[in-house]
Amino acid sequence: MKPELNFTTIEQMEADTAKLHELACEACTETWADRNEKQTPHCKFGEEGICCRICSMGPCRITAKAPRGICGADAHTIAGRHYLRMAAAGSAAHSDHAREIAHTLLATKPEGPYIIRDEAKLKRVATEWDIAFEDRDVYDVAHDVALFALNEFGKPFGTQVLLKRATKERQELWEREEIAPRAIDREISSSLHMSHMGNTADAEVLVRQSLRVGMADGWGGSMIGTDFTDIMFGTPTARDTEGNLGVLEKDMVNIVVHGHDPAFSEMVVTVADLPELQSYCKSKGIKGINLVGLCCTANEVAMRHGVRMVGNFLQQENVVLTGVVDMMCVDVQCIFPSLGPLTECFHTRFVTTSPICRIPGSEYIKFVPETALEQAKQIVKDAIDNFANRDESRAWIPTSKENATVGYPNEQIIKELDGVTNSHVEERGSYRPVIDAIKSGVLRGAVAMVGCNNPKVRPDYSHIEIMRRLLEHDILVITTGCAAQAATKAGLMSKAAKEVCGDGLKRVCTLVGIPPILHMGACVDISRMMLLASDIAEQWEVPITSIPVVGCAPEWMSEKAVAIANYVVATGIDTYLGIEPQVKGSEQMMQLITEGTRKISGAGYNINTDPDELVQAIIAGIEKKRDLLGI
Amino acid sequence: MKPELNFTTIEQMEADTAKLHELACEACTETWADRNEKQTPHCKFGEEGICCRICSMGPCRITAKAPRGICGADAHTIAGRHYLRMAAAGSAAHSDHAREIAHTLLATKPEGPYIIRDEAKLKRVATEWDIAFEDRDVYDVAHDVALFALNEFGKPFGTQVLLKRATKERQELWEREEIAPRAIDREISSSLHMSHMGNTADAEVLVRQSLRVGMADGWGGSMIGTDFTDIMFGTPTARDTEGNLGVLEKDMVNIVVHGHDPAFSEMVVTVADLPELQSYCKSKGIKGINLVGLCCTANEVAMRHGVRMVGNFLQQENVVLTGVVDMMCVDVQCIFPSLGPLTECFHTRFVTTSPICRIPGSEYIKFVPETALEQAKQIVKDAIDNFANRDESRAWIPTSKENATVGYPNEQIIKELDGVTNSHVEERGSYRPVIDAIKSGVLRGAVAMVGCNNPKVRPDYSHIEIMRRLLEHDILVITTGCAAQAATKAGLMSKAAKEVCGDGLKRVCTLVGIPPILHMGACVDISRMMLLASDIAEQWEVPITSIPVVGCAPEWMSEKAVAIANYVVATGIDTYLGIEPQVKGSEQMMQLITEGTRKISGAGYNINTDPDELVQAIIAGIEKKRDLLGI
Repeated sequence: MKPELNFTTIEQMEADTAKLHELACEACTETWADRNEKQTPHCKFGEEGICCRICSMGPCRITAKAPRGICGADAHTIAGRHYLRMAAAGSAAHSDHAREIAHTLLATKPEGPYIIRDEAKLKRVATEWDIAFEDRDVYDVAHDVALFALNEFGKPFGTQVLLKRATKERQELWEREEIAPRAIDREISSSLHMSHMGNTADAEVLVRQSLRVGMADGWGGSMIGTDFTDIMFGTPTARDTEGNLGVLEKDMVNIVVHGHDPAFSEMVVTVADLPELQSYCKSKGIKGINLVGLCCTANEVAMRHGVRMVGNFLQQENVVLTGVVDMMCVDVQCIFPSLGPLTECFHTRFVTTSPICRIPGSEYIKFVPETALEQAKQIVKDAIDNFANRDESRAWIPTSKENATVGYPNEQIIKELDGVTNSHVEERGSYRPVIDAIKSGVLRGAVAMVGCNNPKVRPDYSHIEIMRRLLEHDILVITTGCAAQAATKAGLMSKAAKEVCGDGLKRVCTLVGIPPILHMGACVDISRMMLLASDIAEQWEVPITSIPVVGCAPEWMSEKAVAIANYVVATGIDTYLGIEPQVKGSEQMMQLITEGTRKISGAGYNINTDPDELVQAIIAGIEKKRDLLGI
Repeated sequence: MKPELNFTTIEQMEADTAKLHELACEACTETWADRNEKQTPHCKFGEEGICCRICSMGPCRITAKAPRGICGADAHTIAGRHYLRMAAAGSAAHSDHAREIAHTLLATKPEGPYIIRDEAKLKRVATEWDIAFEDRDVYDVAHDVALFALNEFGKPFGTQVLLKRATKERQELWEREEIAPRAIDREISSSLHMSHMGNTADAEVLVRQSLRVGMADGWGGSMIGTDFTDIMFGTPTARDTEGNLGVLEKDMVNIVVHGHDPAFSEMVVTVADLPELQSYCKSKGIKGINLVGLCCTANEVAMRHGVRMVGNFLQQENVVLTGVVDMMCVDVQCIFPSLGPLTECFHTRFVTTSPICRIPGSEYIKFVPETALEQAKQIVKDAIDNFANRDESRAWIPTSKENATVGYPNEQIIKELDGVTNSHVEERGSYRPVIDAIKSGVLRGAVAMVGCNNPKVRPDYSHIEIMRRLLEHDILVITTGCAAQAATKAGLMSKAAKEVCGDGLKRVCTLVGIPPILHMGACVDISRMMLLASDIAEQWEVPITSIPVVGCAPEWMSEKAVAIANYVVATGIDTYLGIEPQVKGSEQMMQLITEGTRKISGAGYNINTDPDELVQAIIAGIEKKRDLLGI
């Protein structure tokens, strides 16, 4: 047994939640836990994917006595269509976010507020797309790059340009299997068309299209979103921060940025540091401004500015319940509608900023590049003004927080690896040291831990428990999204966490100077992981399906996760799920997603709702890949 | 009471269905009626729109004790998001069909198989889009026009080009209310994004986006689809045909074309007439080839070739149950998956032709322009070969069929009206005679009867009963889709049907020489109706919301119908629904779709599941509009 290092335990986190929940009850409101109790048990038909609401003849539900819906759709058709629609909606969400980022890139100008911060990355992308760079104004190049990308969403011909970043083997396979995605939005529309009443009823065809529409996200929208975010706001680098509810400050103005689109949160981060607002804050007799991040927005601003992370998905109500949040401002995705009534119970101002995410009970400020800076200033000023309305008798901040070192995109990983190579005899700028460590067995492999929280399992427990077990087994973890924040809260993203690792991984962490869990970003950044795995396969000179690298989403809940799971599998990476996709009522669908896709892409799902069994399966899967490689 | 004219009654149609149903039972199969019985009563949560399956934390269902889902989404959010998704999926279906048509236009060439048949229409569209026409090869123009249209699906900037066909008042309103649709696929993706977990929870915003994504269909995809279909296959003109199961022939090879995309069915129609196949048929000792249409494909080929119509949506199994169908070949949309097992019980060959519509139990031939003619020939040949496999002991063809005069797109209506104007004193090429007839009260108004069949009401009864009552009340009916076929089966689309009309309408029918129900095409052709209403408003010089013209979908079932209803309402035309949209569990949503949209577009839904009450409401609505106009 490894030393505990006094990291916050899951029990301590749950005790904090329980205390805040008591405050919720006193304040005449409720949290997801109460609603979850009232919604349980869930409808079996929906949970198993055999309820169809695709036309208004129904709803139809499959039973032994009624094995087909009115049109004749059976369990396989119904579950398959719903599954495809989840993948399509997830792809739409990520990609529409990326579209906004592309429009923001188009709005960059030297005088700001949106500027180019990573010219090298801009040059790399421009070169890749045959857009002239040398002797040109960098903003002209940026605008050409943005226009090129916007075309990827709607071009009438051809497949996604970024597929070319994959290994040749994958590119050929995607073409051959007809899962190379065409225009992003076209794949989404076609998916809805295929699953419309009276169209595709063949489960295998629906699963193939799920892979394709997922690919339009992972190797399309998400990858564009990540690259352009880096170009505008800087490619993240390693930096220290803290995470969990304890990062809220009693005597400071607490502003929470929540959501996914950094175009909004970056502006808030920028203005919060302005002397004019700092002095305005001081003029009110307040110590300062404490900006913290929630959900994937937290990942974005932590990786680029070290902004502290107050929590992940199921913690969003807890944050308000502390009574010390003066401003909760959100952009898109994963925002609980409950924040409307909840913030009304407190002094907290709740501001929505995107036409995509309009919530009753919020103040709506339509955030646009032209006025972004002024709007962000107003939000911060409003937060400062709102500090005086705090009811100190209802304020309670848990003490729990942990250190974390975040910011390991591919470029940073390479940089760290370059630091331990001998430039006289070894290749620089490659993943060779990692490959060698895996080959030698010092590292057994790597797992991409991703995904949300889901009350169907004990929240954060699956993330934390699986990660600890992987670290003990000398398996390096890379992470994004709510999984990253679970790691942070448990202290596992600190460099000190090497102490809980097996000897091999501990040595690697010491030598390279990294935490055992590498933070790669928000959920949109899982595209970074695809490039990482592709490049490792390329440099290893084996198919991507052979390398001992797998994905795991132990607590996923959103449709984006379905899109992600599909592109990860299409990329050839086995994916371990701790929550069942809603297809269990169809044997065909269960077979297709766990085994059937292996015939297409060489990878598939392994589904287990028990985290203990799931991590065992992951380790066995990695060891099996090692065996097959003969290492 | 008007004379019955011996038209087929609904009771006779139901007797035919009952007899065929007996045969179904003997043949160890089942029909929608059996499945409907097993699926009834439907799940109340789904039917009322208060079941949410948008993430995997659920499903969540709203009850008095559980008024919010786990994330905090209430009944309004849940019903609103599902409603928006239905509109988005409907828009995707119509528009993706149109995209295929645009790609087919791009594949036209002088040597065929796809050629330009309506150069005048091509010129009109090219001129509208500033594409040079004069002194150019017509195919070069066609290809430019196709490329221009394909851009409308994915262009990064601007709104749909065809909005300019609407009245100035509408264009300004759509812009002002922010419901002018941008790229078609973008509106679809954004709709999925907005309704994704953690995004828009405000029902009004969801309804506004439903209008916008509907508009992307009606004034985008559908309108493009209709125009290009006319350009390639000819703008329909008035012609006689017959409809109902009685058009099947005992001693001929019966080939049914079923679906929506005429690019496929047109080829089958073309080759069925070829001497080589006719003689091949004769060489087998068979009298001939009897090609008939089903569903919207029937509308397409009837309007352009007089091909007889064997039935509408809920009749598709009946057609097979006659035992005399040698080939059922389908393209996209509204194809029952039950046709797989059903055709297996008979000798009928079941061929699917589109990657969008793959059905277990069918033979799949991927239909592509390059080989379309050869593929169609093979299908017809296979049908001829299959004739010998018919089991005469199981063959039974109902005698019911009626005459119909079909093919009244806007151009044909204008032509008919020109026929009754005096060229010396009156304007030609306008709707003036109709406007005058309505102003004078000879006609009280017009109703666009559209939509599907739905077992939630007595199939076809609502269509037929409402149409009869409207005709008696001197209200002209225009119709598309399954409603058109209900009219056909009941004899109401024949010129003889003027006898069941009120005196005013009867006089108009006699004078102009038209049936009292004008057949405008398939469901994708409801865009024709939008242009008709716009042009009438323009020529009348009143807002479109003022003219006594309304829409009615008494038996709708598909998501396409939701998209249609949204663009009809956004166009300013009141819409009467005989099936409840699945939002009844939300007071806010019910208020928004029946009243709330009136503040946006000046129109809304009137929902009533009793056809008797529905037609009374329609008549009252039309009379009210007349009163307000002072006519």
